Amino acid sequence: MGHSIQNMLEREQQQLNTALTSYIKELTIPDRLKESVLYSIEAGGKRLRPLLMKLTCTGLGGDPEKVYPAAVALEMIHTYSLIHDDLPAMDDDTYRRGQLTNHKKYDEATAILAGDGLLTNSFHVITTSNLYTDQEKVNIVTKLSKASGLEGMVAGQYLDMEAENQTITISNLERIHHLKTGRLISFAVVIGGFLAGASLGTMEILKKYGDYLGIIFQIQDDILDIEGDQAIIGKRVGSDIDNEKNTYPSILGLDGAKRYKAKYVNEAVQCLQEVGLENTDLALISSYLSERNQ
Amino acid sequence: MGHSIQNMLEREQQQLNTALTSYIKELTIPDRLKESVLYSIEAGGKRLRPLLMKLTCTGLGGDPEKVYPAAVALEMIHTYSLIHDDLPAMDDDTYRRGQLTNHKKYDEATAILAGDGLLTNSFHVITTSNLYTDQEKVNIVTKLSKASGLEGMVAGQYLDMEAENQTITISNLERIHHLKTGRLISFAVVIGGFLAGASLGTMEILKKYGDYLGIIFQIQDDILDIEGDQAIIGKRVGSDIDNEKNTYPSILGLDGAKRYKAKYVNEAVQCLQEVGLENTDLALISSYLSERNQ
Repeated sequence: MGHSIQNMLEREQQQLNTALTSYIKELTIPDRLKESVLYSIEAGGKRLRPLLMKLTCTGLGGDPEKVYPAAVALEMIHTYSLIHDDLPAMDDDTYRRGQLTNHKKYDEATAILAGDGLLTNSFHVITTSNLYTDQEKVNIVTKLSKASGLEGMVAGQYLDMEAENQTITISNLERIHHLKTGRLISFAVVIGGFLAGASLGTMEILKKYGDYLGIIFQIQDDILDIEGDQAIIGKRVGSDIDNEKNTYPSILGLDGAKRYKAKYVNEAVQCLQEVGLENTDLALISSYLSERNQ
Repeated sequence: MGHSIQNMLEREQQQLNTALTSYIKELTIPDRLKESVLYSIEAGGKRLRPLLMKLTCTGLGGDPEKVYPAAVALEMIHTYSLIHDDLPAMDDDTYRRGQLTNHKKYDEATAILAGDGLLTNSFHVITTSNLYTDQEKVNIVTKLSKASGLEGMVAGQYLDMEAENQTITISNLERIHHLKTGRLISFAVVIGGFLAGASLGTMEILKKYGDYLGIIFQIQDDILDIEGDQAIIGKRVGSDIDNEKNTYPSILGLDGAKRYKAKYVNEAVQCLQEVGLENTDLALISSYLSERNQ
């Protein structure tokens, strides 16, 4: 089963990468800035959010082709957030996905501008798509800007930095990850449902499901930072402990974090049952994410 | 005449400031991040772009109230660009509009996130407005993201930094300012026309007019950095020369720059005549901008 999921992930990654890079390559951008944008875009990553969007859409009977512009926009926003999070003034990281971070490969000014540009153009991708009606475009831009803006991901990154070197409660930690990771994952599955014509009720449940998945994903990230294999993950293991970061294992212990994760896996499965998606590829991914080793 | 323009500017500034701050204040944002966003938003500035949008709209017979959401969004993007441009990795400025820059008052991480958030939420302001049809929203988001993104303002800021410590030609300098300043000013007047129901032909001329105005504005900025009064401008005079920046006076000489500006003032006036706006407040502003002392 793990093997077929890997195949599915890789196939989806290729399709998404093609859509992403061809959008960027067609733009008229100063050479080195374009190179820097493509450097981070082509660094890859799991393309998890686009996959979740697509599987939700197809699971609910929608046309998979329709997700691409929204998925490309979402991945552009995800990529911008990684570039900015890695900056010296933020998490000050040297490596990401096994290669130098954008500001180390280029310079800080270029990295800031590459991030700003990816964020800005993500909305342009949506409003200029010929696959959506105006009403769909407005709905997608509204949800994406809300999920990633001052009340969403940006607030999450801010709170994450504010919590550094402080001991926080598990509910504060969850709030941070809800904003920083959960909101964009929820966006992915909600838009997947929206493009399949799902009801408001179904979208509400998908939103909760995305939120649980975000927490599961984060707990597993924290666990991998303790138990993971550096060569497989592509980044240094043990950095959370060195940086005295608040993590699920640091608050609940390693076993406690694993039990906590199991609880959310159950909640996520229940959401899928409520919308009739428990026997789809989306359900496979949900359990894969909870057990992944990278 | 100068006095009545000052009055008009101040009246418009107040209306725009009220719309801007009430939007931000209603958002649920972590306290200190919100404070930092409001700090830069309330730092004021001339609110020139919103005024140009409004005067174009009313000059062409449109409803002035309709410009506010687009004007607020535009000013949020302008503010984000100033916050990011002032960062140590970019222009490394300590003062802006007579007060500490955002990252000096708060810190770099907060300034980066305040900028990211303002940029993201600017699109949310447009798509959630109840003054626009879906078609208008899509049109405004498309134009705004294009003008400010990888092919617009972001490219301009990148080229501006790349040109530092290099001698460039006047046409390269114009290209930089066209992207960095002109695109957003053109957006202001084009959307002002769009919201008044202007034809595509009129919007094409308005776009050119906005571009000329951007160049005029920039030349005057450069002249003020030589001849201006620090107490009135609110920032240090002579910094362009100290930083060996490429400016119109550095390439053309001070008198040459003034003549160059006069040429563009004529071009701008001609555009206004072509669309029948030569006897409106927009024309007054155009000549005011070319002579302003702050």
